[in-house]
Amino acid sequence: MKKVFNFNEIKKDLNKVEKFLSDYVNFPHPDLRNSSQHILQAGGKRIRPAFVLLSGKFFNLNNTDLVPFAAAVELIHMATLVHDDIIDKADTRRGKPTIREVWGNKFSLHAGDYLFAQAIKLINPQRNKKIAKVLAKISVEMCQGEIQQLISTFDTNQSVKDYFYRIKRKTALLIAASCKIGAIATNAPQEGINSLYKYGYYLGMAFQIKDDVLDMQGKCNVIGKPVGSDLAQGIITLPTIFALQTNNTSAIKLTKLINGKFSNGQEDLDEAIAIIKANDGLKKSLLISKRYIIKAKEQLKFLPECSTKTSLEQIADYINEREF
Amino acid sequence: MKKVFNFNEIKKDLNKVEKFLSDYVNFPHPDLRNSSQHILQAGGKRIRPAFVLLSGKFFNLNNTDLVPFAAAVELIHMATLVHDDIIDKADTRRGKPTIREVWGNKFSLHAGDYLFAQAIKLINPQRNKKIAKVLAKISVEMCQGEIQQLISTFDTNQSVKDYFYRIKRKTALLIAASCKIGAIATNAPQEGINSLYKYGYYLGMAFQIKDDVLDMQGKCNVIGKPVGSDLAQGIITLPTIFALQTNNTSAIKLTKLINGKFSNGQEDLDEAIAIIKANDGLKKSLLISKRYIIKAKEQLKFLPECSTKTSLEQIADYINEREF
Repeated sequence: MKKVFNFNEIKKDLNKVEKFLSDYVNFPHPDLRNSSQHILQAGGKRIRPAFVLLSGKFFNLNNTDLVPFAAAVELIHMATLVHDDIIDKADTRRGKPTIREVWGNKFSLHAGDYLFAQAIKLINPQRNKKIAKVLAKISVEMCQGEIQQLISTFDTNQSVKDYFYRIKRKTALLIAASCKIGAIATNAPQEGINSLYKYGYYLGMAFQIKDDVLDMQGKCNVIGKPVGSDLAQGIITLPTIFALQTNNTSAIKLTKLINGKFSNGQEDLDEAIAIIKANDGLKKSLLISKRYIIKAKEQLKFLPECSTKTSLEQIADYINEREF
Repeated sequence: MKKVFNFNEIKKDLNKVEKFLSDYVNFPHPDLRNSSQHILQAGGKRIRPAFVLLSGKFFNLNNTDLVPFAAAVELIHMATLVHDDIIDKADTRRGKPTIREVWGNKFSLHAGDYLFAQAIKLINPQRNKKIAKVLAKISVEMCQGEIQQLISTFDTNQSVKDYFYRIKRKTALLIAASCKIGAIATNAPQEGINSLYKYGYYLGMAFQIKDDVLDMQGKCNVIGKPVGSDLAQGIITLPTIFALQTNNTSAIKLTKLINGKFSNGQEDLDEAIAIIKANDGLKKSLLISKRYIIKAKEQLKFLPECSTKTSLEQIADYINEREF
């Protein structure tokens, strides 16, 4: 994902976001400072800050400094990663040990709370009360998505709608909010705010579906996690749901493997993934992802012509095409 | 604590807070709704909402509705309890099973996040941006206090100052903020806001010190948890710090018991508590608590004369005298 954000138009500002975050996480408490710097230095695509900056390009007549807003959405994202790693018992993220691996689960719980509180503090209402409201609202929704993912593990009866409910909250809303925030901060007209929000939402949905497909076909050393890692944890994504819906004998076998929580380990998991592929789970999912990409790009029609529009189009194309 | 808040002046509003909370936690997601109702129905002193309401009595010329603000501070408090119970591996709270006991640790992690996000959403800046800022700021501090408590478990080298750092963030700040919020919401003059904040801060410090003393002398069935439960978990409170500082042979024994993490169980714990008592740990702590009570009451001098002032005095006296 990194190369796609090498757009010259936001390169300088993305570096400013990085500097801002690095300064901001210089927290007074040594362990909170060290652990936050640790996760920051582990890197990441900075996709959300990039969307804040790019969206802000369309209407930024008053030259608003978007850097703190871009940093805040990344802090929220970081907070969710810290808590996710507790849930997933993850030892590494982006090739580096997780906070829970170095500092332990209990510490990670508070560290995640802390990063979230710091994000809320950064976008305090005196900076921009509309944006503060957006962040509070989506934070609530994001938790609902996490809860839904948690309670639906190993549940073979979930529908495509259930899956959309989850990924909307888990992924799409924060990307949509990032686009919206860039627009709000720069006093964009309501139609502009709406279009950028929808662009981010559709793109976020496509991004997550693509991610879930890649989880089943990627190679460990490319995407940084073992193939089928979601499924192994019981997270039923779109390819699996499609395969389960085919209602043939292999779908029955797939149900059994999931209900049995892959008791034979990698062998069961490999068989499950083979069934999903044979039942066109990946293909069908990619079609849905492509539809969201088209919807995202359609929203760009309502935005003023400028080079940023081409960038947003290219990002959409990139998500459609990315292989890792 | 319940009886002390039976002041007629806020009884009606406290009932409104209860109704508001009950309606507010009627969340769309069934598990989040059920778990939130569960913790709400487990009860609690509602000390923080009471302080919002009482503080609001001094200057409420425009008859501001304080109920949502009072509810928000209770939601923040509830969120911290849900996460605390994960850290403490607590099975019961107020005689009822904890959320982690019923729904599990992972669920509790997200449920705590969710309650916090809901509190932030409730006090969105369009309601009152100054109050939103206060809540964001103290949330950051509260996490710092939790982290400090966590990393200082079984640490016999901590000072009285370290202890004050922790309890300020763990307890006093939210009570201070509750008082401040009641004042801000009712457009109190700056001196009034400051005095109520300081009253809450000093009272909160006294409250926590008293709590830590009671933890070592209370009876299981009265305070709802076993005697010495904090110490058993390695939480070093003021009585222990005072006893450790005496530097006699029994203090050395106490250090050994703590460093050994009470490897002989209850026997070790009982011996430790006996040493703390013999070294006047409880007495010295109660003196400090009393000093904070006096400081809290002094702040009341700067507030207008009214019946609420008497109530705040009585609360201070009650905290000084309470036996459970």
